[in-house]
Amino acid sequence: MKGWKRYFPIADWGARYSREHFGSDLLAALIVTIMLIPQSLAYALLAGLPAEVGLYASMFPLAAYALFGTSNTLAVGPVAVVSLMTASTISEFAAPGSSAYLQAAILLALLSGCFMLLLGVLRMGFLASFLSHPVIAGFITASGLIIIVSQLKHLLGVTVNGDNVYILITELAAKTPEFHLPTLYFGLGVLVFLLWARSGLKPLLLKIGLSDSIAGLLTRTGPIIGVFATSVLAYQIDAGALGVRLIGEVPSGLPDWKLPELELSLASKLLPAAAMISLIGFVESIAVAQTLAAKRGEKIRPDQELIGLGSANISSAFSGGYPVAGGFARSVVNFDAGAATPAAGLFAAVGIAATALFLTPYLAYLPQATLAATIIVAVLSLLDFSVLKKTWHYNRFDFIAVTITLLGTLVFGVEAGVFCGVIASLILHIYKSSRPHIAVVGKVAGTEHFRNVERHGVVTHPEILSVRVDESLYFANISYFEDRLLALLDERPSVQHVIVLCTAVNEIDLTALEVLEMLNETLYNRGISLNLSEVKGPVMDTLSKTDFPQQLTGKIFLSQHQAVTQLGGYSYTDAETYVI
Amino acid sequence: MKGWKRYFPIADWGARYSREHFGSDLLAALIVTIMLIPQSLAYALLAGLPAEVGLYASMFPLAAYALFGTSNTLAVGPVAVVSLMTASTISEFAAPGSSAYLQAAILLALLSGCFMLLLGVLRMGFLASFLSHPVIAGFITASGLIIIVSQLKHLLGVTVNGDNVYILITELAAKTPEFHLPTLYFGLGVLVFLLWARSGLKPLLLKIGLSDSIAGLLTRTGPIIGVFATSVLAYQIDAGALGVRLIGEVPSGLPDWKLPELELSLASKLLPAAAMISLIGFVESIAVAQTLAAKRGEKIRPDQELIGLGSANISSAFSGGYPVAGGFARSVVNFDAGAATPAAGLFAAVGIAATALFLTPYLAYLPQATLAATIIVAVLSLLDFSVLKKTWHYNRFDFIAVTITLLGTLVFGVEAGVFCGVIASLILHIYKSSRPHIAVVGKVAGTEHFRNVERHGVVTHPEILSVRVDESLYFANISYFEDRLLALLDERPSVQHVIVLCTAVNEIDLTALEVLEMLNETLYNRGISLNLSEVKGPVMDTLSKTDFPQQLTGKIFLSQHQAVTQLGGYSYTDAETYVI
Repeated sequence: MKGWKRYFPIADWGARYSREHFGSDLLAALIVTIMLIPQSLAYALLAGLPAEVGLYASMFPLAAYALFGTSNTLAVGPVAVVSLMTASTISEFAAPGSSAYLQAAILLALLSGCFMLLLGVLRMGFLASFLSHPVIAGFITASGLIIIVSQLKHLLGVTVNGDNVYILITELAAKTPEFHLPTLYFGLGVLVFLLWARSGLKPLLLKIGLSDSIAGLLTRTGPIIGVFATSVLAYQIDAGALGVRLIGEVPSGLPDWKLPELELSLASKLLPAAAMISLIGFVESIAVAQTLAAKRGEKIRPDQELIGLGSANISSAFSGGYPVAGGFARSVVNFDAGAATPAAGLFAAVGIAATALFLTPYLAYLPQATLAATIIVAVLSLLDFSVLKKTWHYNRFDFIAVTITLLGTLVFGVEAGVFCGVIASLILHIYKSSRPHIAVVGKVAGTEHFRNVERHGVVTHPEILSVRVDESLYFANISYFEDRLLALLDERPSVQHVIVLCTAVNEIDLTALEVLEMLNETLYNRGISLNLSEVKGPVMDTLSKTDFPQQLTGKIFLSQHQAVTQLGGYSYTDAETYVI
Repeated sequence: MKGWKRYFPIADWGARYSREHFGSDLLAALIVTIMLIPQSLAYALLAGLPAEVGLYASMFPLAAYALFGTSNTLAVGPVAVVSLMTASTISEFAAPGSSAYLQAAILLALLSGCFMLLLGVLRMGFLASFLSHPVIAGFITASGLIIIVSQLKHLLGVTVNGDNVYILITELAAKTPEFHLPTLYFGLGVLVFLLWARSGLKPLLLKIGLSDSIAGLLTRTGPIIGVFATSVLAYQIDAGALGVRLIGEVPSGLPDWKLPELELSLASKLLPAAAMISLIGFVESIAVAQTLAAKRGEKIRPDQELIGLGSANISSAFSGGYPVAGGFARSVVNFDAGAATPAAGLFAAVGIAATALFLTPYLAYLPQATLAATIIVAVLSLLDFSVLKKTWHYNRFDFIAVTITLLGTLVFGVEAGVFCGVIASLILHIYKSSRPHIAVVGKVAGTEHFRNVERHGVVTHPEILSVRVDESLYFANISYFEDRLLALLDERPSVQHVIVLCTAVNEIDLTALEVLEMLNETLYNRGISLNLSEVKGPVMDTLSKTDFPQQLTGKIFLSQHQAVTQLGGYSYTDAETYVI
């Protein structure tokens, strides 16, 4: 895509928009709206914000993403992990419930949005690739646990404080005598209903003759049924008088569109958290968008996604909302319901606007415990402990990265947890490459291929040591390579020629070059020549800038076969070496 | 080397000790002692300690290293960079000249020694390889500059404070009117003499008929001549009365051997600096020891060197000294003078002990400016700006690492500078591998070799895309690889088979595996098969733990040649694939 259209995907799909698209998008939007109403209220509660802020964050952001986003199915809005991160960030600077708290959340959305927009314009979407899947999985699971624990107080009707899972649980345990039973009945009722709906509702709907796809979509209406049923019940029995905490009056109407208050000293303090929220929000969104796009053979563009999500967050800030991202569950529902273009998001925004205009009076009796149960059930699907088993089985280093991220997030909190995970995965990668696999190789008889002597039946010669090093040679591993090579030579006193097979050497840095120069001298003193073979173009280019090829006591051969043949004294007519 | 002898190299060389060894070692020790007297006093001054502490750090540490060290030529004792690091560490906790300052320096030596000993016993000498040569070069050069600037006040006879090059220079400039001319005459005189001696003395000695080696060794006596001449002159003209700062009374006699005062709260604060000093001291020592050993075909053992240097530092602490390491210049002199075994160090220790017993009265009139000039000239050889040019030419990433270390050390100080450098070089390494070189390859006609289509004249087929990725596939680069591969396919609509040549793939982590699984599905939807070839044993082992080989729409071939031949529909009788 060229020119300005690159930044406005709507110009592309808008021009091809058809009546079929409209029908599909409208149905998907209806289902997503029904799902989004309870979720937006619940996640606002999780973020420590008034319920209506969740609705505000579900209007303009969705419209902005529809203009700038490249995914046809990503459902943007309040999401669990970002709401948790918002709460953990803002509560350091303001008291939950205060107007300063709301202003800080709005500012956080503005900063996150600007940060994403900047990354997108600078085409730095690749930064997200520094979060490995194990780190993301560990982080999401730990965040899910934190969210569940943080919601228990609403379910139990007690007040506890603390931003740490351990503290929250001990405080809850200490308050066992104060558990508020009427609240607990509401909460447990919704919880049991939603858990049953996840597995039991669909078979029931199928039994009464509904089609598979309709039944699947209706299953998703569980939360709105819970909201409706408990609100009516709470109204009937006057639950507020019994001490059950209700949402209370939610202001009706659309949010004002206005410039957020830009307090610079606070902004500078929020900046690191905003960057982290942007990155996590982006990674979560891109992961689901990419998975869904792949299923339909569609393509999304990560840098443009940053612009789309950035615009969504900025418009959230301008309309009194808080940070948003693309949600896992809602996007899957949007996809299943057949959303054909980003217009589905636009229609969902209209649905939420209608809710804010006409339905808020009915929310006053909604118990907070209902929303807590909704959050807990939604978040259960985020918990993925199988990744521990999977990584343990596949690769211990990945297992260590998951474990560090998981424990880091639980113990030190969400931002520090991700940070621990990223640093740990980078250090583990360096550590692995600092002790590379080094194989003595020999020739597979009848071919020109060389393979590990310990894995294959191969031909070797006593005067030649062929060694393959399975890593780039650089400062962190060159001493290890030198030690191993000298140890191999100590075991093989008859060797006159060493050939280092460089197929896996993608780089030789200055430190490695200097050690190779010393090694060349050491071997020369022992009467052994040092040769290289199959050096890659880019590496050869770099070596050619130095006098190393001339200093080398041996040669640099184009192929290992040729090296062994020449050094072994066989004739090799087609001889071609880089250096003669 | 087996058993206990591994930890006592002296048991090995001591058993073979001969009269020839004794003669060589004695001569080398004499020269080193003459060099060490002014240096030990000067570096103590640089560390902010009384002159005699330099002598104390030059007795027992040398003896301890002779017992445990593996280098025949490494000359241990006070060195410039470690002295600077000691000063910058201790001055945060105590005032220079106070007894608390001395106690802290002793404690620092104890901690560094224990840290080195621990690393040695745990065989963690490999940790030093995380300091790349560019980082070391940048750090040493920056430290040299800081040392030179820090000595200017002694040369100019003024008092300035500040631990930053920029502050020191501006303060010095502001004090121009206070420059003390008699001090300056002494300092400049020694400076000019030493600079001349470095280049002019040897030709003169050769002209009067001395042999080349004797002349070379006598050249090294410049500093002791400077010390002697200026002390005599200062005594004659009563320079102290003119305001020239002299060393003053140096207590004569040997240091007491006693347990250092172990103040735990201070120790815990000094620990990070002790670790950094250990690492830098070790790297500096091992670099010179290895270079010198290689010249004679000798071998040193890094882990045992840690034990040797650790013992040296611990005995320095027990005998009232401060942190020590192996010095560049003194070791080269020791080597040139013919030191045959570590006994040379032992004899030098005896020489310094004799100095402490009998020669200290003569040091009272030594001007501090003489020692400052000695330090400046010694440190000049540490400055190496050529590394900037060399790395710029060889590899821009190495250049960036040098520059960051150099500027980091100058601006933030010695420990922070090394830390910046190490982190920068690790991040640069990751960054490089996050955008790997990816080449489309074709077959070199008449061979079984595959090379980059852009560098070699090779045969390709329109229905097959052979791609070589020159890096392990892992979380930081797998998205980049996926994007590039899909872009290559967009340019080649006729492709039916993709073969990824994995010769340079040393690892596929879980993130990469999951992306490959998705890629396999994406290609399947487009009717393209995904194949791998020349997968290494360790990587194949890991993949075999998963169902990826079964999921794969194509096959995993033993060789690229075989892959192209089979997929292209040619006959290939000797077919052998990992997966059929």
